[in-house]
Amino acid sequence: MSESNAAPHPVVILIGAQMGENIGACARAMLNCGLTEMRLVRPRDGWPNPAAEAMAAGAVSVLNGVTVFDDTPSAVADLQRVYATTARPRGMVKPVVTPRQAAVELRQQAGQGVRTGILFGPENAGLNNDDVALADAIVTAPLNPGFTSLNLAQAVLLLAYEWFQARDTTAPRALGGAEEAIPARKETLEALFRRLSGMLDARGYVRSEDLKETTMRNLRNLLLRIDPSEQDARTLIGVLASLERPVDTGGAAD
Amino acid sequence: MSESNAAPHPVVILIGAQMGENIGACARAMLNCGLTEMRLVRPRDGWPNPAAEAMAAGAVSVLNGVTVFDDTPSAVADLQRVYATTARPRGMVKPVVTPRQAAVELRQQAGQGVRTGILFGPENAGLNNDDVALADAIVTAPLNPGFTSLNLAQAVLLLAYEWFQARDTTAPRALGGAEEAIPARKETLEALFRRLSGMLDARGYVRSEDLKETTMRNLRNLLLRIDPSEQDARTLIGVLASLERPVDTGGAAD
Repeated sequence: MSESNAAPHPVVILIGAQMGENIGACARAMLNCGLTEMRLVRPRDGWPNPAAEAMAAGAVSVLNGVTVFDDTPSAVADLQRVYATTARPRGMVKPVVTPRQAAVELRQQAGQGVRTGILFGPENAGLNNDDVALADAIVTAPLNPGFTSLNLAQAVLLLAYEWFQARDTTAPRALGGAEEAIPARKETLEALFRRLSGMLDARGYVRSEDLKETTMRNLRNLLLRIDPSEQDARTLIGVLASLERPVDTGGAAD
Repeated sequence: MSESNAAPHPVVILIGAQMGENIGACARAMLNCGLTEMRLVRPRDGWPNPAAEAMAAGAVSVLNGVTVFDDTPSAVADLQRVYATTARPRGMVKPVVTPRQAAVELRQQAGQGVRTGILFGPENAGLNNDDVALADAIVTAPLNPGFTSLNLAQAVLLLAYEWFQARDTTAPRALGGAEEAIPARKETLEALFRRLSGMLDARGYVRSEDLKETTMRNLRNLLLRIDPSEQDARTLIGVLASLERPVDTGGAAD
C-alpha cells in the first residue's frame, strides 16, 4: 500500500487537556494505530510534561514531535478537513459520523493528499461549541446511551483504531500456529478411524448389530469435527496404540 | 432488539491484574459498551480495591458485581465459549480472530444462549500459555506491528466496543441538529438565486454577455453544494436584503 507511506495521516489535536498522564496515554494509543502527529492547544499544565512521558510507554517519539498552540483556529490552520469528537449532540446543523465512517472518510481524504485533523476536548467537559463549529463534521461513537463518557485516551484510541482497521487486511478468522496446523490427509484420518473402530469391535463396544452402522458414522463425524492436523492424527493413532498395550504394573517380578 | 435483553453478555475476566486503577478503567470501558459482568483471577492487590473505584468514573456498579477466583479454570467453569486476548502469536494451533470477528461470534453465541467470556492477562506480560490453552480462540487486534502493546483498559475497550458496534444500527453519516436541518424548498432556493443574480446584474458583476450564462450556472451550482436548510436559505435572502440597504453612517445629521 504505497498510499499509506506518502499520504498525510490525521493529526490528533488535544484541546485543553488537563492531565499529563492522559496526554501520554493518548500518544501510546496513537502509536498503537500508526498515528504520530499530536498537537496541543493550551495544555493545562504546560508543555513538556514529565507525567506524559511516564504514561507514553514507548511512544515518546510522538510526544517529542508535539507542537503547542494558543488557540484552536491556529492549530487547524494548515488542515483541510477537521473532525470534532463529541459524546453528546450539539444541536448544530453539521454532519455526524461514527468513528468507523470517519475512518473511511479520513482514508479517502489521505488518498487525495488532503490534510486532516481530529479534535478532542478536555477530560472534564469535552469540546466547547466554538471549537466544534470549526469542524467539518462531528464524530460520535455509538455507545451505551446510559454511560457514554469516555476517558480521553479511550476516545483517541477508538478513532485511531478505526483509522488502522479501515486499511487493515488481516483475515477475520484464521488458524494460528500454521506450521503445525497442516490439515490431516484423509488416509491418516482413515487409519485413525480404522484403528479405533477395530479396537471397539474387539471389545464389543456396539452391543447391537443394528446400531453399528449409525454408531460408527457418528464417531466418524465426531472425528471430522475435531478437524485434526496431520500431526494431531498421528498423535491420536499413537494414543490408541498405547491404550492397547497391557498396563505396566512396574516393579520386578517377584 | 429483544435478544440483547435476554441473551447472556460476555463476561470480562481479568487475570492477575496489577493496578487497581486499571481494573477501574476496565469497568468504565465495559459499561461504556454495555458490558457489566467482570471476574478477577488473583488480582495482585486483593479485592475490593479503592484505587479501582476512583478510576471507574461512574461504573462502580460493575465493580460491585465483581467475583474473584483463585485460578482461571474456576473462573471459566460455567462458560461455554472463551476467547483469549493476546498481542503476539503463541504458536498454538487455535483459531485467531480479530476483535471485530470475535464480536460477531460473541453476538451469535449470545443469540443461542451460549455463555461466553473474554480473558485478559496482566499488564506487564499478558496471558500465560496455560490460560490461552483454556480458550476456544485467540483474539488479536490488528495494530501497528512496531508498537502493539495496549494498555489493559484499552484492550478491554476494543473488545467491548466491537461487541457494541456489532449490534448497533446508528447511521454511519447523518446530519445533526435535524430539527433545523429541513432541506430548503426549491422555490426558496430559487428566490434566493433570483435575488442574488438581480443584485449582481444591477451592479455589472458579469462584464461579458457571453460569459453570463456560464457564470450564473456556476453560482447556482455553488449554492446547491452549500445545501442550505429552509432556514439557511431564508437567512441568506435576509443577508442579501440587508446588503442592498444603504450603509447606516450613524450619528445625527449635522
